[in-house]
Amino acid sequence: MLNPFHVDKADQATLSQLQVDLQSQFDQLKQDKLSLDLTRGKPSADQLSLSNSMDGILEGNYFSDSGTDSRNYGGLDGFPETKAFAANILKTAPEDILIGGNSSLTLMYHAVLFANLFGLNESQSAWNNENGVKFLCPVPGYDRHFSICQELGIEMVPVPMDENGPIMDKVEALVKADSSIKGIWCVPRFSNPTGITYSTDTVERIAKLGTYSASNFCVFWDNAYAVHYCEPNAKDVSSLMDFAKEYGTEDNVMLFGSTSKITFAGSGLSYMASSSKNLAAFKKHLGMLSIGPDKINQLRHLKFFGNRAGLDQHMQKHADLLKPRFDAVLSALDENFTSSSALTWTKPEGGYFISVDAQPGLARKIIELAASLGVKLTPAGATFPYGKDPEDKNIRLAPSFPTIEEITKAMEVFVLCVKLATVEQQLSKAS
Amino acid sequence: MLNPFHVDKADQATLSQLQVDLQSQFDQLKQDKLSLDLTRGKPSADQLSLSNSMDGILEGNYFSDSGTDSRNYGGLDGFPETKAFAANILKTAPEDILIGGNSSLTLMYHAVLFANLFGLNESQSAWNNENGVKFLCPVPGYDRHFSICQELGIEMVPVPMDENGPIMDKVEALVKADSSIKGIWCVPRFSNPTGITYSTDTVERIAKLGTYSASNFCVFWDNAYAVHYCEPNAKDVSSLMDFAKEYGTEDNVMLFGSTSKITFAGSGLSYMASSSKNLAAFKKHLGMLSIGPDKINQLRHLKFFGNRAGLDQHMQKHADLLKPRFDAVLSALDENFTSSSALTWTKPEGGYFISVDAQPGLARKIIELAASLGVKLTPAGATFPYGKDPEDKNIRLAPSFPTIEEITKAMEVFVLCVKLATVEQQLSKAS
Repeated sequence: MLNPFHVDKADQATLSQLQVDLQSQFDQLKQDKLSLDLTRGKPSADQLSLSNSMDGILEGNYFSDSGTDSRNYGGLDGFPETKAFAANILKTAPEDILIGGNSSLTLMYHAVLFANLFGLNESQSAWNNENGVKFLCPVPGYDRHFSICQELGIEMVPVPMDENGPIMDKVEALVKADSSIKGIWCVPRFSNPTGITYSTDTVERIAKLGTYSASNFCVFWDNAYAVHYCEPNAKDVSSLMDFAKEYGTEDNVMLFGSTSKITFAGSGLSYMASSSKNLAAFKKHLGMLSIGPDKINQLRHLKFFGNRAGLDQHMQKHADLLKPRFDAVLSALDENFTSSSALTWTKPEGGYFISVDAQPGLARKIIELAASLGVKLTPAGATFPYGKDPEDKNIRLAPSFPTIEEITKAMEVFVLCVKLATVEQQLSKAS
Repeated sequence: MLNPFHVDKADQATLSQLQVDLQSQFDQLKQDKLSLDLTRGKPSADQLSLSNSMDGILEGNYFSDSGTDSRNYGGLDGFPETKAFAANILKTAPEDILIGGNSSLTLMYHAVLFANLFGLNESQSAWNNENGVKFLCPVPGYDRHFSICQELGIEMVPVPMDENGPIMDKVEALVKADSSIKGIWCVPRFSNPTGITYSTDTVERIAKLGTYSASNFCVFWDNAYAVHYCEPNAKDVSSLMDFAKEYGTEDNVMLFGSTSKITFAGSGLSYMASSSKNLAAFKKHLGMLSIGPDKINQLRHLKFFGNRAGLDQHMQKHADLLKPRFDAVLSALDENFTSSSALTWTKPEGGYFISVDAQPGLARKIIELAASLGVKLTPAGATFPYGKDPEDKNIRLAPSFPTIEEITKAMEVFVLCVKLATVEQQLSKAS
């Protein structure tokens, strides 16, 4: 076996022998009839159990601190106390916040829908009054953002990312040149899937976009992993809203988040933040379809955390469960591909994903090979608009849900599949 | 005082004296500086307390009978057990059901949105491919249905109702004559606001509409008060879905309901039912904006009710709280307006509302008079499309939320305002 895995420097004979060895390991692993899954950014059962005390936590007191009966109708945008909780996470002010139901995805969809159909300023600000609507999509990114655009007929323009976030020279040039660009999707901390956190300079430049963009342009700032660190001293992200207030671009930003990966994935709270003008327009349209979010669940969350220190202690428990899982992935990659051209990867300090780049043209092949051994990986291309990774090289690994043993086994398979695919590609280049 | 209140038969002198007496009572009541509210169909705190045991009811067991972890992601359309629960209420089969979040209004909005933008059959079935979309709106009806139409640019065509439901001769003629009619709003049991329940003949004829309507026509069957009786032997409504299956029109019906007025108004379960084809299309689009409904809350509801008998016992407790409130309204009306032309009203056996018709031209006036005495009534016109009651005579009374004492006082004011407005109208006619 080549160690380090320098296939690009190996001669033909070495490669051929390697291919035979790897294929034999592959055939052997096939006997194991594995059924493992590294696809979904789902919390593990242990993580979910951290919040088990939430059901029943109210002990019969269904009234908010401000005296509202949480059981009845009313309250389209959430309790003041919940707004304060969310504002702290999104780094903005409580009056900028609207509380949603169990999914920030729903808030994002409705924000795009309303901006498109009705406009968030006045009716002439509706995007669909104009010819063609485009969104900038930093890649690799989150497939559900891309699905919203596709569903609502919005053209997606990919923009590359580096370790500081989207390449801002490109973003700025595109926004300046094309007023049909109405939005940009951002996951600013522990980005899905690369795990990188936007630099302060990037955040400031993103807040500044509204000073020269189309007036109805909006940054969709999905701060899904705002407090989801694995390393205690993980890099934090600066406040977009603070910069927006400095540049007078509050109307051009919408921030989102949820407790789906803090408490219960399917039964958390979602929240968004924007300017008072945008929130007023959003609420006007939201009121046509909603009687307001579940207020009892808001009270449960408030009582469960108590204060920010309570949230931080809770997130440390998540980190304790997540870190060994990330380490299981990273150590397998380190052991096998350090200084190899076959694979590069990110080393996130938090979030839910590790992003790997194989040699161009191999992502789909690797994912197929792993599937044939019973290891499900996120479909090739999923991290790109329209499901099309132009270089066919990016793969998203999601280690939160399986056990350490399952991750270790799945990574054994993954490593083998990367090696086999890379060697075969190398051989076919040589022939 | 005239008793019975036969103002139409009174002479000028009697009317003048009456006007003076009523105005004096009015001025006296003004001193009381009342603050009462008969506007909203909200459960009272006592009703909400019937479900107080729900928080904590799971006792740490977050797994469904079928073994699913309710805390995690997944399950776009609800647990099989929840579907069975909802199917029983909507009188259809579990496989016809989709479980939503805390509001059936949201399901209805999305159903109209998806049918309009994308089509529920294939893309050519989208309503907005055609020139103009219309909905039939039986009147008086529910303002939030009308708001959805207005928001999404759908023209509303009012259709009168009688004690059996919408006047079906008119409905059928309109649907036959105009293929741009794509929907009809129905509240089939204890209709909002009249409280009437559709006859079996009406239900059958509504199910049959799909045999000659536009193929993408859909009945929006909001069975909001399906089990919400006040009288134990209240008239029930027949199964729309049974008739639809008989006529092969399952694609032309969508049924809705929720537990908002069964458990917690803001934290219940919503559900809908339709054909497998419609549900598949609905789910495809729903999946773009939802991670699925709150599954923990489903488990709470299932455990709380146990079975249909549990639900029935629970609804009897609601009835025990609601009936005296309805009686307080009805006895005030009986006492003052029996056999009077000044006011006619419905005597619902369930639901949340009593609908009254004053003399044409007086609804707005009466509501204004009551407001000036501190009694809030539903705004005039709210029960009609575009907020326009063509005869300005309908007023919706909602007695569920206030105490009996408050209702009694509010009705004293209401009765006085009806009398004063009627006498003044009569006098101005005579002059």
